[in-house]
Amino acid sequence: MLVVMQHNASSQEIRDVVDMIQEMGYEARPIPGRQRTSVGLIGNDGQIEPNFFQSLPGVLEVIPVSHSYKQVSREWKEENTVVSLPNGTQLGGRQIALMAGPCAVESEEQILGIARTLAGMGATILRGGAFKPRSSPYSFQGLGVEGLKLLAKARTETGMAIVTEALDAESADHVAEYADIIQVGARNMQNYALLRKVGQIGKPILLKRGLSATIEELLLAAEYVIAEGNPNVILCERGVRSFDTQTRNLLDLTAIPVVKSLSHLPIIADPSHGTGVRAKVTPMARAAVAAGADGLMVEVHPDPNRALSDGAQSLYPEQFQALMNQIRVIAQASDRELTPPLGRTGS
Amino acid sequence: MLVVMQHNASSQEIRDVVDMIQEMGYEARPIPGRQRTSVGLIGNDGQIEPNFFQSLPGVLEVIPVSHSYKQVSREWKEENTVVSLPNGTQLGGRQIALMAGPCAVESEEQILGIARTLAGMGATILRGGAFKPRSSPYSFQGLGVEGLKLLAKARTETGMAIVTEALDAESADHVAEYADIIQVGARNMQNYALLRKVGQIGKPILLKRGLSATIEELLLAAEYVIAEGNPNVILCERGVRSFDTQTRNLLDLTAIPVVKSLSHLPIIADPSHGTGVRAKVTPMARAAVAAGADGLMVEVHPDPNRALSDGAQSLYPEQFQALMNQIRVIAQASDRELTPPLGRTGS
Amino acid sequence: MLVVMQHNASSQEIRDVVDMIQEMGYEARPIPGRQRTSVGLIGNDGQIEPNFFQSLPGVLEVIPVSHSYKQVSREWKEENTVVSLPNGTQLGGRQIALMAGPCAVESEEQILGIARTLAGMGATILRGGAFKPRSSPYSFQGLGVEGLKLLAKARTETGMAIVTEALDAESADHVAEYADIIQVGARNMQNYALLRKVGQIGKPILLKRGLSATIEELLLAAEYVIAEGNPNVILCERGVRSFDTQTRNLLDLTAIPVVKSLSHLPIIADPSHGTGVRAKVTPMARAAVAAGADGLMVEVHPDPNRALSDGAQSLYPEQFQALMNQIRVIAQASDRELTPPLGRTGS
Amino acid sequence: MLVVMQHNASSQEIRDVVDMIQEMGYEARPIPGRQRTSVGLIGNDGQIEPNFFQSLPGVLEVIPVSHSYKQVSREWKEENTVVSLPNGTQLGGRQIALMAGPCAVESEEQILGIARTLAGMGATILRGGAFKPRSSPYSFQGLGVEGLKLLAKARTETGMAIVTEALDAESADHVAEYADIIQVGARNMQNYALLRKVGQIGKPILLKRGLSATIEELLLAAEYVIAEGNPNVILCERGVRSFDTQTRNLLDLTAIPVVKSLSHLPIIADPSHGTGVRAKVTPMARAAVAAGADGLMVEVHPDPNRALSDGAQSLYPEQFQALMNQIRVIAQASDRELTPPLGRTGS
Repeated sequence: MLVVMQHNASSQEIRDVVDMIQEMGYEARPIPGRQRTSVGLIGNDGQIEPNFFQSLPGVLEVIPVSHSYKQVSREWKEENTVVSLPNGTQLGGRQIALMAGPCAVESEEQILGIARTLAGMGATILRGGAFKPRSSPYSFQGLGVEGLKLLAKARTETGMAIVTEALDAESADHVAEYADIIQVGARNMQNYALLRKVGQIGKPILLKRGLSATIEELLLAAEYVIAEGNPNVILCERGVRSFDTQTRNLLDLTAIPVVKSLSHLPIIADPSHGTGVRAKVTPMARAAVAAGADGLMVEVHPDPNRALSDGAQSLYPEQFQALMNQIRVIAQASDRELTPPLGRTGS
Repeated sequence: MLVVMQHNASSQEIRDVVDMIQEMGYEARPIPGRQRTSVGLIGNDGQIEPNFFQSLPGVLEVIPVSHSYKQVSREWKEENTVVSLPNGTQLGGRQIALMAGPCAVESEEQILGIARTLAGMGATILRGGAFKPRSSPYSFQGLGVEGLKLLAKARTETGMAIVTEALDAESADHVAEYADIIQVGARNMQNYALLRKVGQIGKPILLKRGLSATIEELLLAAEYVIAEGNPNVILCERGVRSFDTQTRNLLDLTAIPVVKSLSHLPIIADPSHGTGVRAKVTPMARAAVAAGADGLMVEVHPDPNRALSDGAQSLYPEQFQALMNQIRVIAQASDRELTPPLGRTGS
Repeated sequence: MLVVMQHNASSQEIRDVVDMIQEMGYEARPIPGRQRTSVGLIGNDGQIEPNFFQSLPGVLEVIPVSHSYKQVSREWKEENTVVSLPNGTQLGGRQIALMAGPCAVESEEQILGIARTLAGMGATILRGGAFKPRSSPYSFQGLGVEGLKLLAKARTETGMAIVTEALDAESADHVAEYADIIQVGARNMQNYALLRKVGQIGKPILLKRGLSATIEELLLAAEYVIAEGNPNVILCERGVRSFDTQTRNLLDLTAIPVVKSLSHLPIIADPSHGTGVRAKVTPMARAAVAAGADGLMVEVHPDPNRALSDGAQSLYPEQFQALMNQIRVIAQASDRELTPPLGRTGS
Repeated sequence: MLVVMQHNASSQEIRDVVDMIQEMGYEARPIPGRQRTSVGLIGNDGQIEPNFFQSLPGVLEVIPVSHSYKQVSREWKEENTVVSLPNGTQLGGRQIALMAGPCAVESEEQILGIARTLAGMGATILRGGAFKPRSSPYSFQGLGVEGLKLLAKARTETGMAIVTEALDAESADHVAEYADIIQVGARNMQNYALLRKVGQIGKPILLKRGLSATIEELLLAAEYVIAEGNPNVILCERGVRSFDTQTRNLLDLTAIPVVKSLSHLPIIADPSHGTGVRAKVTPMARAAVAAGADGLMVEVHPDPNRALSDGAQSLYPEQFQALMNQIRVIAQASDRELTPPLGRTGS
């Protein structure tokens, strides 16, 4: 941390900053410049707030140098974290994993039908919401535990792994019972009670980036999970809020190489929520793979026009098939490949 | 809802849209234009997603006309909601309420001392965090229930009402036991489980706007609370995320008159989080009152340089006194006045 | 400038950074830390780009410490710049200046009529566009030189000073001939050819903040004007782009105290463009004065519903009168006052 | 355009809106709904401002239905515009065009050397700034006409086409004399005087998206050029402003499929400015091609660490070669191919 003094700061003001740093148990190193003096704080262990010094007399600004995340960083662990699922799918290695399925579980027929279709096309992870976070209290809120049971049935039939969202401590326990990956949604990225809870459960976590979360905040949210002893965190870029209303969100694909340089965790992209418009999902799914994503989460619905939620951004099954063919080619450009399809025996 | 067709949509495509609307139980009204036809959906009750029709063949775009919030709107209830606290303070009427106190409760000496000072200066509501949402898992997380007890003690001594934050269902029960207003923080604005929980508890709720929440989303979050039967919601503008790093957030004071025209709920401003820098708190607090805020939430600390959190944005007590004197004048310009100070008897 | 090395940077990599700094003619000062070494560059004169070192081997990040603006800064000149107009109005002193008038000059009757009304209400500067920047090539583009002549006529009649916008070198010469203040609009804030041109002309400049300009960029744009020898720059906050569509822009009033701490230049606010909605102009105008603005620019039209541009955000004359009465009270709270009305003789 | 009335609007207020629409020469069509009446304005020719009606008594909001751009739209012209350059390169067809070169022309040796290298690697368009828009007046501003002459010399030697930026009317004339494509930079996207000027010149225009321009505004800026009679406009996505400071801008690749659905114009991406960091350029260049870009503009410098501007985002020549190899594979996934290298004869 660098405390930059005003050009006319008195030597007493500089000394006060030095004293306060030392009093807090850190080392202070004054750095005289041509225009002004700065004071380096050495040994910052993440306990000090960046703006702690900002309002002291004579201080111009405070510049953080080290980051407050630790265990998620590449400096802490150099090699990639590879998250392995019971059905053999891996996230974070050379293979690219495909999560696909409807926005919400709606019925046994719907979820089993689409699971069979998707498994046949090569997807190995089934998505489908049982507990739905909806901006309006009057919208469809999901089938709850009943939906989880249907997902588990689809797993038994197809061998696909299951990813589905938890909204609070109670639903997290339910999800943990049935799913292979517990999803924490964008709106809950800084719901610290929930992050701690899923950190304690220990199953792989899919952590979606908040609507206006910086990458540093996303990494700090992951740090909450890891700090509870659960290292299996998969990050997910799903679009951030922007000023243009042409798409629902602005899919920030640069987040993929940025995360990969700062952290050892796997990161996937969700072009369905990231764009909100079916016709943009396929090009952006291709782009995400080209940018280096470790996987994709894509909404596919057997009959999107009758979906109970997010129909407008769901692909038709045949569009998903075409997408698979395209990204198989693109993966080669970066010397990667798609996860092989599940065996005929259903796992 | 208006479904705008492409200029070359076939009459069959238009008919399909009309059929689908009718099949859903609503009335469809085609509106031929010079360039293209639109189809109005009449009778939307908030169950239909704006983008439901967006991907149908021949559709150019879908324009929502009615809003999905109901009970929070001025159309639902024309006169202002006035939230009354046990100590007589009102929010939403002619008087402007002052909430002040430290970011976090740190010790009995700290909270009782500052409460006495603030009550003496005319503030009638004491703020202070007991459960703190922190972006890093390694930062100070608050004193918990112990902090709540200290706040209650300060209430007994000074007569101030208490506002403090709940993070999840469990802490909400604790907060409800000790506080007069339960705060839902910006990071939890779309934590629907928490919104439902505090809606059921029934005490007044202070609902902070999320970092990138639109005003419509803020109103929908309030709708969650009201839909559970709790009409006593106070909204709070506390700054949104922006591209400039000069301040921690961008305080969107225009939200105040916008909310007042759309909703009957009271709205206050938090210039401390809204700016993040002590020297900007006073001018922006003045501006919030001039813009029509029903109250202010301001961080004041007896010794900001030693605060365990957010010290850089906390006012010194004497700065708060100066602010009170300034806003007393400003309130007159809009024919309003500050809440009178608490009586000597402590309520 | 601080070049932060990776935690595992080799001593050779550190030496290379030091060598490159010295080769460029600056002083290099290595600062060993617990986690990593940083190298301070001392004597930065604004010629070095912040990201010059960013891609060198072993470099983690580069942190700018000094700013690239100079003459606009408070460190360069401590006392406020006060811009004085021929009719005695001052910007940057104790008095608050009122600029008012229609979006565009439409006819002699319109501009003379509204000028008389506004002068009678106490405004001392008349605004009105003659050259209009419009997002569509098919919208009304202003009366051009004819409009400037009408503005000059209104000045002769009322004594008001004139502010109007220039779009390029050619229109800048025309504007300079007729107006007292040359406006550079938000869309041209980084039109460096225009900034240089108006810097050479030497008349006071009203420089509007770009739609997504940081305050640092706004100050750098002003630096372009001052670097040409023209110190009379008035800055103007007029709203930045945001994600919420409730208002046309997000009026960033915190920019006022931020600019005042970084720079000696006067700053005013334009709540008409800043909100885009008539009903929000008055509360935000009040808020701007409360936040410390040195003046306001407000659109007022004799018949807003028939205005050729921006009618929806123009006040009725009687609303402007009411606003004047309110801000006269608010100004007192910060020990300021409105510019006194022009004398009966027309200056 | 749809004028939505308040739920309690009087029938007189509705009639006033109808009358005003008819008075303006358009057709008005009232649409009664369950909650409120709306009035459709039929025949909008782009002359009416969206917010013209917004402040009339009884009006709740005004919703634009048709767009103000015309000639740039797919509805105006269904097939893709293909811009052809003298050396045979095409933009907007099946082939993907590669523009590469240094940020700024620095010397004959630099520009000729890198041009030979890039032509040898298969790029067919050379970029290089002669007139540089710099945020600080004290930074290197380009070699001017001398730089243009060096670019022309590189064209003679290699056969590459030349693209370089114009800043105002004067430099546009110079650029038109030497270059094959005139670039209008992001900061000048709404400099309407410049857009008109380059529209009149008639050479192909590369129009970069402004830092916070919506796609609709980008298309309207292109409309300015086309309205002057110049149909050869190439759009360029180069990143928009965002809240995260990890990268210089947020590259909005979704703009590519969005533009392609709304307009017939070609669109390319500039991942160098779009990210600002060398290590992110290659993945995002790959992603842009996967998203459907008609070309790339990439900064390549023979010795990036000594570049006079933007060195940190410039690729080394060998990195560019590797990128070419990767995107050649990716293009196949969408049934496209790279522009074939220039013949040995230099055109």
